[in-house]
Amino acid sequence: MASQEIEALANALARLPGLGPRSARRAVLHLMKRREGALQPLLAALQTVSERLSTCSICGNVDTRDPCTICADPRRDDKSLCVVEEVSDLWALDRSRLFPGRYHVLGGKLSALEGVRPEDLSIDKLLQRVGAGGIDEIVLAMNATLEGQTTAHYLAERLETYPVRLTQLAHGLPVGGELDYLDEGTLAQALRARRPVA
Amino acid sequence: MASQEIEALANALARLPGLGPRSARRAVLHLMKRREGALQPLLAALQTVSERLSTCSICGNVDTRDPCTICADPRRDDKSLCVVEEVSDLWALDRSRLFPGRYHVLGGKLSALEGVRPEDLSIDKLLQRVGAGGIDEIVLAMNATLEGQTTAHYLAERLETYPVRLTQLAHGLPVGGELDYLDEGTLAQALRARRPVA
Repeated sequence: MASQEIEALANALARLPGLGPRSARRAVLHLMKRREGALQPLLAALQTVSERLSTCSICGNVDTRDPCTICADPRRDDKSLCVVEEVSDLWALDRSRLFPGRYHVLGGKLSALEGVRPEDLSIDKLLQRVGAGGIDEIVLAMNATLEGQTTAHYLAERLETYPVRLTQLAHGLPVGGELDYLDEGTLAQALRARRPVA
Repeated sequence: MASQEIEALANALARLPGLGPRSARRAVLHLMKRREGALQPLLAALQTVSERLSTCSICGNVDTRDPCTICADPRRDDKSLCVVEEVSDLWALDRSRLFPGRYHVLGGKLSALEGVRPEDLSIDKLLQRVGAGGIDEIVLAMNATLEGQTTAHYLAERLETYPVRLTQLAHGLPVGGELDYLDEGTLAQALRARRPVA
């Protein structure tokens, strides 16, 4: 139907999360019909990001600058450090705009099944950052999965000797969660961590 | 949170149909984490399409070649011509792989409201193609909207004098359509065009 070049573009777009073959075709058409308004801006943005893409040497975030925008921001609170598994977790947390501190990306989680050991994660660098001092609180913001919690547990042990307060994200009902639809694990967590009514 | 360059990329992606701000962010992250596997192929595909993008001088399709892939395909049937409003309609029809002939893109539809007159559409070029001979059937594949049908009606009058068979797409129940959920217009069409049970 269309030329190889257009098929190649549709295929590249279809591999993006959230787009399938059908919506990728619509996106291609959208781009082709709006050469100046859509295709060129996307091309330019992609080119710039591609050229400048780098991993932050401090926290492990990906950005177009090193140190990344968060590490370079003087308004951030140096005393709080939030440790996450992946860059996507950092982005998700930072979207909430509730955490004022810095981040540290482990680059994965401990997993016996997948053979991921502590030395495969950015743990030494984390200990260095903590050892350098100035950090009061470390939020272990691992996923609420078995592997995430194993990783948090391991980190808590390694960080025990440092004079920092270790915290973790609260577990319980998600906002809008209906008891009837939640799994037993979540309900058990919510019940175990129940609080007196204020 | 992220640098301006990354925000620019997220914004450009968010303007694609099918992607919103949230999925655009996920797409950006996906691209940044897979520089070789996803970012570079998309960049290259976009660059190629951007460089070679052209409107077919025969039918009005957009493609990376002129004449377009369909017009240049020797296996297509020259005797059938399908007239559509927009390039997106051409793509949608051709995805069904049921029409073996050529296409003609009007580039819009007649609209008193939006001030689109016959001379604003690619109608002269259509008459030239038909006048050159060799076409047996013209399918007027306009949308089933008031303006689409007005356009089809107008074209039928202009094409009256040519020795071609004029046809239009069938109107009626869509596949999977439930009577209870269909509008009266569709039901009226389906009833009016009812056929004897085979």
